[in-house]
Amino acid sequence: MKIGLVGLGRMGGNIARRLMQAGHQVVAWDRSDEAVQALAKDGAEAATGLQDMATKLANKAVWWVMLPAGAPTEDTIAEIAKLAKDGDVVIDGGNSFYKDDIRRAKMLAEQGIHYVDVGTSGGVWGLERGYCMMIGGDKETVDHLDPIFDALAPGLGDIVRTPGRVADKVDARAEKGYIHAGPAGAGHFVKMIHNGIEYGLMQAYAEGFDILKSKNSDKLPEDERFDLNLTDIAEVWRRGSVISSWLLDLTAIALAKDEMLEQFSGHVADSGEGQWTIDAAMEEKVPANVLTASLFARYRSRIEHTYGDKVLSAMRFGFGGHTEIPQ
Amino acid sequence: MKIGLVGLGRMGGNIARRLMQAGHQVVAWDRSDEAVQALAKDGAEAATGLQDMATKLANKAVWWVMLPAGAPTEDTIAEIAKLAKDGDVVIDGGNSFYKDDIRRAKMLAEQGIHYVDVGTSGGVWGLERGYCMMIGGDKETVDHLDPIFDALAPGLGDIVRTPGRVADKVDARAEKGYIHAGPAGAGHFVKMIHNGIEYGLMQAYAEGFDILKSKNSDKLPEDERFDLNLTDIAEVWRRGSVISSWLLDLTAIALAKDEMLEQFSGHVADSGEGQWTIDAAMEEKVPANVLTASLFARYRSRIEHTYGDKVLSAMRFGFGGHTEIPQ
Amino acid sequence: MKIGLVGLGRMGGNIARRLMQAGHQVVAWDRSDEAVQALAKDGAEAATGLQDMATKLANKAVWWVMLPAGAPTEDTIAEIAKLAKDGDVVIDGGNSFYKDDIRRAKMLAEQGIHYVDVGTSGGVWGLERGYCMMIGGDKETVDHLDPIFDALAPGLGDIVRTPGRVADKVDARAEKGYIHAGPAGAGHFVKMIHNGIEYGLMQAYAEGFDILKSKNSDKLPEDERFDLNLTDIAEVWRRGSVISSWLLDLTAIALAKDEMLEQFSGHVADSGEGQWTIDAAMEEKVPANVLTASLFARYRSRIEHTYGDKVLSAMRFGFGGHTEIPQ
Amino acid sequence: MKIGLVGLGRMGGNIARRLMQAGHQVVAWDRSDEAVQALAKDGAEAATGLQDMATKLANKAVWWVMLPAGAPTEDTIAEIAKLAKDGDVVIDGGNSFYKDDIRRAKMLAEQGIHYVDVGTSGGVWGLERGYCMMIGGDKETVDHLDPIFDALAPGLGDIVRTPGRVADKVDARAEKGYIHAGPAGAGHFVKMIHNGIEYGLMQAYAEGFDILKSKNSDKLPEDERFDLNLTDIAEVWRRGSVISSWLLDLTAIALAKDEMLEQFSGHVADSGEGQWTIDAAMEEKVPANVLTASLFARYRSRIEHTYGDKVLSAMRFGFGGHTEIPQ
Repeated sequence: MKIGLVGLGRMGGNIARRLMQAGHQVVAWDRSDEAVQALAKDGAEAATGLQDMATKLANKAVWWVMLPAGAPTEDTIAEIAKLAKDGDVVIDGGNSFYKDDIRRAKMLAEQGIHYVDVGTSGGVWGLERGYCMMIGGDKETVDHLDPIFDALAPGLGDIVRTPGRVADKVDARAEKGYIHAGPAGAGHFVKMIHNGIEYGLMQAYAEGFDILKSKNSDKLPEDERFDLNLTDIAEVWRRGSVISSWLLDLTAIALAKDEMLEQFSGHVADSGEGQWTIDAAMEEKVPANVLTASLFARYRSRIEHTYGDKVLSAMRFGFGGHTEIPQ
Repeated sequence: MKIGLVGLGRMGGNIARRLMQAGHQVVAWDRSDEAVQALAKDGAEAATGLQDMATKLANKAVWWVMLPAGAPTEDTIAEIAKLAKDGDVVIDGGNSFYKDDIRRAKMLAEQGIHYVDVGTSGGVWGLERGYCMMIGGDKETVDHLDPIFDALAPGLGDIVRTPGRVADKVDARAEKGYIHAGPAGAGHFVKMIHNGIEYGLMQAYAEGFDILKSKNSDKLPEDERFDLNLTDIAEVWRRGSVISSWLLDLTAIALAKDEMLEQFSGHVADSGEGQWTIDAAMEEKVPANVLTASLFARYRSRIEHTYGDKVLSAMRFGFGGHTEIPQ
Repeated sequence: MKIGLVGLGRMGGNIARRLMQAGHQVVAWDRSDEAVQALAKDGAEAATGLQDMATKLANKAVWWVMLPAGAPTEDTIAEIAKLAKDGDVVIDGGNSFYKDDIRRAKMLAEQGIHYVDVGTSGGVWGLERGYCMMIGGDKETVDHLDPIFDALAPGLGDIVRTPGRVADKVDARAEKGYIHAGPAGAGHFVKMIHNGIEYGLMQAYAEGFDILKSKNSDKLPEDERFDLNLTDIAEVWRRGSVISSWLLDLTAIALAKDEMLEQFSGHVADSGEGQWTIDAAMEEKVPANVLTASLFARYRSRIEHTYGDKVLSAMRFGFGGHTEIPQ
Repeated sequence: MKIGLVGLGRMGGNIARRLMQAGHQVVAWDRSDEAVQALAKDGAEAATGLQDMATKLANKAVWWVMLPAGAPTEDTIAEIAKLAKDGDVVIDGGNSFYKDDIRRAKMLAEQGIHYVDVGTSGGVWGLERGYCMMIGGDKETVDHLDPIFDALAPGLGDIVRTPGRVADKVDARAEKGYIHAGPAGAGHFVKMIHNGIEYGLMQAYAEGFDILKSKNSDKLPEDERFDLNLTDIAEVWRRGSVISSWLLDLTAIALAKDEMLEQFSGHVADSGEGQWTIDAAMEEKVPANVLTASLFARYRSRIEHTYGDKVLSAMRFGFGGHTEIPQ
């Protein structure tokens, strides 16, 4: 198929390359001319802008937008909407909020344009490993785009197959690494929850390694300390333990390089998905203590001292509880 | 009654004074001679040591130990055990762990000595307001000591009486500010949970004021900010709102003095009770998310950057999630 | 002043009564004719509808809307907007989301109508104790309405005054139980955080009493149990302890009536403010573990078994960890 | 080597089998004669009791105790201590609390007996996949036992090797699936934290799947619902996503079998390690909100209604907050 790729950052560029490796044609544009030229060298057709891309794409054009969520994606899709024709497909492959997808899909449907949202996991490893994709949109359109998704996905590979999957109850595409999750928005919704879970998993490991490391802290009596080798612990857990995972693999790599992790400041960023996951939990009235605590740990990591902590001290000062004997 | 008071810090000294104001006799000792002399000036009989105190106390001596929990209390009670006689009473008025009470009560009982644990709330305000006391020990002994507790307690005062209390189901002493909670250990157990709750209440206010203050943060778009007067907010909540409390009164006082609370570093200490409360919850298999989060917020306040946060960053670096587009 | 009161439920009716007791005139309307007649008997001027109320209110009319947040308030204000004239004031005294206030204030300002949002705490006790109010709106309008707020507020009463309040830094109204918190929306924002804190305080007590009660659970070895009198514990904590509060007073009343609290199912409702408080915390990137855990505890109280719990069991079954020996 | 295996449950039996498959000799005993005979059929030497086992084991006997933690392990080791000789080794392969290891190691050292604690992960899959082991004890003894651990471990297998491991900084055994973590107790300490992390990981997935499932809940407006296929979602996440893991593999298997997970009641058990992990965190003053929330979620899963929830309702009833309009 012929795909117009808008946004050639690390993710967009690699997606274009993986598509071309599978024999698809890519028309590429990015506001950075350098990025466009780099991809043209790898075989893409360079566009000079969205207008030019509209010309270069055949009828029933497929536009893949791969930009940061929020204004960049919103504005670009609005612009494409002016150029796109009845029967075109607009794919948002970024990290958009799923309610924006629902809104945009409705808006574009009025023009006869199909909207598909693709949540993508796999990070910078995707070019090599393939992208795990969660897709939202109407069935006909998603089926029509199957050759694209099939090319991007990891495929069956050598991952052990899950026993017990019954062909007529499940989506065969799941084993190849992509699913049609539901109508527009469902792709990003599932990806959002994926990231929410990711925060929780990461924080579970983080707390565990913290407790291991602090077992040698001078807060403990000397004869209760252990000086543990965290690098080896991460490694051994990769091998037959219940908590083996890809995130643990990454941790083992990082620790092997520098067990003290000194290159990292301790300030941890968060993208929108963690927060949106909690919003979804609250809308559904589902308790989500672990996912929320994970998000809050990141907020806290970026604050030196909270005002709240000072309020605590002020109260303690007030009732005299900071003295040695009971309050 | 005649009471031997061991430990004349801020709490011990004030307790002695309140006892003497009510007509009780106090024999006082502290390892600081200065503290002993100060109290002697206020009417106490100065002892030169525990041995001397044993001599000065009548038969059926009452020893009130008011020392920091742990070794100071443990060692002192062990020493008193050598001097005390059958029928004596040893009171631990500090913040001991209730399982230590149970153990010590058993040990002393073998010598015919009664053990009473008194958990005390009210802080430095107790001399004036009276002490709220939770008492553990055998009934006969606690009843025998009633004149002491009655003198220390706030009494009915002008606090509105709880409607519906039925005389034959409740302990009349509760309205005067003290209760016989149960056998040895029960006093400190109830006081321990009191402190656990205290942590939770304090953290609830702390988080609330943090969100109020951060409503003016530059993390928000300018037109979504409010510059709120926290001093007035604390004050107004004292007056008819559902969340009025003594801790809020203290907050209002602190904010009136300095809304920025600049004298406080943001490092918040914790005493043992918070931790013991969580231990008790876990032993009983009771979920206690709020009390635990309150304790952990204090731990976190004293750490600049956690190792766990660096582990998070290392993983993010590993999967490339720290770039602008999806992971 | 003359006030049009729309919504004569428990809160609206009592507000009207307290206003009339202070000499204000009230024009009253409710979709329940019975409620209107009841208030007319107490001295209010009965209106037959909003149109009639518009006629009965003088120029510069003051409309006080006291309805459930969401559609009832939204629709009523929209209808009033059609009837109101330049210079009128619309007060939303319910529990609206503060962003709705901001939006409505902008909309009404275009017609020259002033919008004031009043967050009110004090519950059904307000008629007697007075209402604690947090007010948002433009200064001139809020100052103009001062006689109304002054009548509704508790006033100085016999609550001890906060030492150290400096007249020129603080709002004198705070001591009387109401504040002008800021522009439109600020009143409900402060009230919203108030409720968020309330959830946290309540949960702290709830967990504490749970641990006290479960100290007699058969999950503990028999010699580690205490059979504690929770009624007396609540009572004694009211008297001089650090955790005394109005919520504790209410707890003491409930326990005095029935320590087992058998009339309550254990399902706990939540209104919108808890959720909105967490939203605000996330927008500001403020960690709020305690307030969130409090909200989630309520969600959890209304679910018999979560699907998540079954997922846990399914994993445990998968790795065989449910057997007696290590996983 | 010749190993005496005490406790032939699912774990003990499989360990014995894997040892024999590697050419080691096993003397086996269990209080169930049936279990002993089953293993004898597979090649083990049956013992009639610990005394008999002592006779059958050569000098420098190796005793592997594979029993539930607590009394069964404690009592058995005490009995072995009476039979063991200077130079013998006692291995505790169960899930003991690490402080019990430290105590027992000291006690046995006085008799010249070496104590080794082995934390084992891998569950019922270990016979086939090999056991991931974390070992505590003195270096000489652990090195001496290497043939045993080497036989039980998974070995390098086809798991991708971690890049960057520097031979002289790391323990080569880690890549084969076992480590010498430190002195006695260190093995079980690391295993304990492993389980603490496991709870956190599991709860992160549980909450995520709960939010996915509840996206179809009737608590949401109809046009905001998605009816998601959780079976396919679990499957697709196994393939190239950031959150792929063995626990997710197990989840995918369970969902493929029955997406509703109807065979599970929703009551989730917990073994001691979760609680001990929180104890360790508190001793070290390390915040561990996620691991704690995971543990508490399990407690909560086993309670129908908490008393705390009723306390909340009682307060709400008290202030009238259960009515439709503001509190």
